[in-house]
Amino acid sequence: GSARLGLAYDESQTDNETRVEQRMRVNITGIAETDAGVKLEVRFRLEANEDSHANDISGRGPGAAGFAASFGGLRVDVGNVSNVLDSGDQVDYFGYGVGFTAFLEHNNAFNGPATGFGAGDADATTIKARYTVGDFSASLSYKETRAQAAVVTTDSNGDTTTTTAAVAADDEMQLGLGYTFGSGMSVGAVYSDTDSSGDYWVINLAGSAGAFGYSVIVGDGDNQTDTSIGASLNYEVSSATSIRAVVSDGGNNADTSYGLGFRHGLGGGVTLAGGVGSLNDVTKADLGVTFSF
Amino acid sequence: GSARLGLAYDESQTDNETRVEQRMRVNITGIAETDAGVKLEVRFRLEANEDSHANDISGRGPGAAGFAASFGGLRVDVGNVSNVLDSGDQVDYFGYGVGFTAFLEHNNAFNGPATGFGAGDADATTIKARYTVGDFSASLSYKETRAQAAVVTTDSNGDTTTTTAAVAADDEMQLGLGYTFGSGMSVGAVYSDTDSSGDYWVINLAGSAGAFGYSVIVGDGDNQTDTSIGASLNYEVSSATSIRAVVSDGGNNADTSYGLGFRHGLGGGVTLAGGVGSLNDVTKADLGVTFSF
Amino acid sequence: GSARLGLAYDESQTDNETRVEQRMRVNITGIAETDAGVKLEVRFRLEANEDSHANDISGRGPGAAGFAASFGGLRVDVGNVSNVLDSGDQVDYFGYGVGFTAFLEHNNAFNGPATGFGAGDADATTIKARYTVGDFSASLSYKETRAQAAVVTTDSNGDTTTTTAAVAADDEMQLGLGYTFGSGMSVGAVYSDTDSSGDYWVINLAGSAGAFGYSVIVGDGDNQTDTSIGASLNYEVSSATSIRAVVSDGGNNADTSYGLGFRHGLGGGVTLAGGVGSLNDVTKADLGVTFSF
Repeated sequence: GSARLGLAYDESQTDNETRVEQRMRVNITGIAETDAGVKLEVRFRLEANEDSHANDISGRGPGAAGFAASFGGLRVDVGNVSNVLDSGDQVDYFGYGVGFTAFLEHNNAFNGPATGFGAGDADATTIKARYTVGDFSASLSYKETRAQAAVVTTDSNGDTTTTTAAVAADDEMQLGLGYTFGSGMSVGAVYSDTDSSGDYWVINLAGSAGAFGYSVIVGDGDNQTDTSIGASLNYEVSSATSIRAVVSDGGNNADTSYGLGFRHGLGGGVTLAGGVGSLNDVTKADLGVTFSF
Repeated sequence: GSARLGLAYDESQTDNETRVEQRMRVNITGIAETDAGVKLEVRFRLEANEDSHANDISGRGPGAAGFAASFGGLRVDVGNVSNVLDSGDQVDYFGYGVGFTAFLEHNNAFNGPATGFGAGDADATTIKARYTVGDFSASLSYKETRAQAAVVTTDSNGDTTTTTAAVAADDEMQLGLGYTFGSGMSVGAVYSDTDSSGDYWVINLAGSAGAFGYSVIVGDGDNQTDTSIGASLNYEVSSATSIRAVVSDGGNNADTSYGLGFRHGLGGGVTLAGGVGSLNDVTKADLGVTFSF
Repeated sequence: GSARLGLAYDESQTDNETRVEQRMRVNITGIAETDAGVKLEVRFRLEANEDSHANDISGRGPGAAGFAASFGGLRVDVGNVSNVLDSGDQVDYFGYGVGFTAFLEHNNAFNGPATGFGAGDADATTIKARYTVGDFSASLSYKETRAQAAVVTTDSNGDTTTTTAAVAADDEMQLGLGYTFGSGMSVGAVYSDTDSSGDYWVINLAGSAGAFGYSVIVGDGDNQTDTSIGASLNYEVSSATSIRAVVSDGGNNADTSYGLGFRHGLGGGVTLAGGVGSLNDVTKADLGVTFSF
C-alpha cells in the first residue's frame, strides 16, 4: 500500500483554496504460477481520499479487478487495466511530476486517451498485450465499451441501486512501439484510434545524462486544436534530494503550464515533496509526505 | 482468495453473446480459539466481477459477515451463512459443475431454497447447527427475515442512501440427515419448510468407483410442477485431467439440461477448464482459467 | 481485527425486541518510520454489522482514512480521527461499559461532542496534537467542516451517485489537559467550543485501588439543561472475571441510567460478557462473546 498527506493549494477555488490533501491506497494482489512458468496475477484496490477542497473524505473500493498473465517476453493484461498510452510500456506519458500529488505533469496540455487501473468500477474491458524482445518492445491494446442502459444493480435480496448514466458503445485500439539504445536513451510512440474521439499519437524521448534525467513528449489528435509538447527534467542534487522542472504547452490550452518541485527521501520509504506551478494560468502548489508500506 | 478469467458464451443474449468472464474474490477471515477448545471464526468477502455481457466490471463488499463456532463434532454458523441445502453438509446440491464458471450444475432443474454466504448484504440472519457422530451427521438451520421497510441508510454525517425494496417477513427451517457407508458412498436428505414458498425436499446419493465420481439428486417442492432429477459424473482421465457430464430435468423446465466439460490442472493452483451445455434449450459454453492464492 | 456475536434486548422496540447482535471489524494499517525516528501510520476500516433489530446485516468501508505522525512525546493525528474528547487522551469519557456491546456507558446522560474514527465517510477533517511530558499531557484538536452542497459523486465513467444531505460549515476546537499522580490516579479536563452547539466541558477522575477500578466524569454545555454526572466501577473478582457497575444522570435525561455487567476471559483473546441496564427508563440487556484476531 501507499499513502500521502500534506497541504494543497489551488488558486481557482472560490473558497478554501488550501485543503488537507490525504490518500491511502491498498492493492490486494493474488499471484499464481503454473508448472510451465506462466505467471498469473490479479488485483483490486481499496482507497480513501479527500473528495474536494471541502474537507470531506471518503473511501472507495474494492474496484474492478485487473488481471495479468506473463510468460517470457509476453505479458497480457485483461479487465480493469491500463491501455498502451497509460501503461508506460513505450511512452512515458506522465514524466517527472511536480509536487507530492504530481499536480503538474508534462502531459498537462495533452488530451490523449490514457485510461488505467483504479479503485472504481469500469464500464469497459481492456485487453493489452506487450511483447519484449531484446531492446525492442511492442504493445497492442483493445478497449471495448458496449452500450449499457442506465445501470441498476440488484442484490440477492432484490434491493436495487440506480446510477444515472447510460453508457454509449465505444471502441479503442492502441499500438505502441519502443526501442532502448545502448546509452539508456529510449524512444517510443503510441498511436490510438477511438470511435468516439478519433486519432491520437504521442512520441517520446527519454533518458539520463549523469545526474540529469529528461523526458520529452510531442502529441496531437482529432480532439485538440494544436500540437502539444511537454518536457520534464529531474536533477539529483544528492542521493536523497532531487529537483524537477516541468513544462507543457499547446493542445487546447491558452497558456503555457510550467512548474518546479523537489523530492527529499527521509528514509524508511518516506518522501517529503512539494512544488509550485502554473497550470494554464491557474497557480497550484503542494507540500507533503508520501510513504509506502 | 481465488480468481477466474476466460470467455463465456450465452446464446440467449441479443447482442454480445460472448463476454470476458472475470472474477476476483478475497475472503478476510478472523480466527480465535478459547482455552476450552471452542474455535471461533468470522469472515467477510471482497469481490470484483464483470456485471453482465456489456463488458462492465464492478467491485463489491465487504459484505455481511458470517460467524462459525465449532467444538468437537458440533459446529454452529450464524449470520450471513449457508442454510442446510446450500451447505453441502448432507446433500451435494451442486454436484460436478460444467465449465470454469460452473454455468451448468445438476440442480439446474431444481427450485430448492439454497442460500449462502456472499459479498453482498443480507436481509436475513441464518443460524445453522451441524452435529457429526461417526459416519452420521445431522444439520438444522433457521433463517428469519423480519419485515423491513424500504431501506434507507444514514451515515454519521446525516447523508442518506435509499435502496428501493421493502422486505416481507419470512421464516425458513431446514433439516438435513446424512450417512456415509464404509465404501465411501454417502446418502443424504434435506427437508425445507419456508413460509413464503412452502415445502421442499432433496435426496442425494454420491460416491466414487475407481476413476469415476458420481452424484445423483432427486427433489420436489410446492414451487415446482414436476419432480426434478439431476446427475453429474466425473472421470479422472489422468492425475491432472478430468471430464465431466451433467444432466438435469423436470421441475418447471420444458427441456432437459445437459452438458459436458473438462478440467486440467496446470500446477501452482491454476486450473484450465471449459465446457458446453444446453440449459433448458439455451446453449452456453465457456473456457478459462481459475486460480487460488 | 475484532468481532462480536451474541444477543441484544431492547425494550423500546415495538417488534423483535431481541436481535442477533453481530459485528466484524478489520482495520488495515500502514506504518513507515523515517531515519530520524518519525513514525507515520495510516489506517482505514472494513466492517460488517447487523443494521437494526430487523435481522438485516450489511458491510461498510473502506471508510475515510486516519493518519498519525509521532515523534518523542508528540503525536499528531489528521483526517478521519478522534477529537480530544473522543480520544481518551486526558478524559475517560466512556468509562467501564456494561455489556459485550457496551450498550451503557457512563456518558449516557452527556451530550459532549465526541467524534472519532469509523468505517464511514467523513464530512470534516480533524487535526489533533497531543504532547506528553512526564506525568502531564495536553491535547488540542481542530475539526473543520466546510459548507458542502448535496454530495454527488461521479466515477470515471460518468456514473453519478447522489446522497441527499448538504452539510453546513462548522468549526470545533477542543483542548484537554491531564495529570497522572504517583498513585496512578489521573485527573483530566476537556473544553470544547463548537460553532453550531456552543461550549462543552468535562472533567474526569479515574484510578484504581486494589481490585477496584473507578472513573467519574462531570460535564455541562450549552446543549443540555442540567449538569451531567457519570460514574463506572470495575471489580476484578479473579484474574479472568470482573463485574462492572455504571450510573449516569442529569443532562437532558428525565431518569437516571444505571446498569450492571460482567466480563469473563475464555482465553485465546475471547471474552464472554453481558449486562443489563436501564437507559433513561428503557431496559436493555445483552450477552455474547467478543474476540480479536
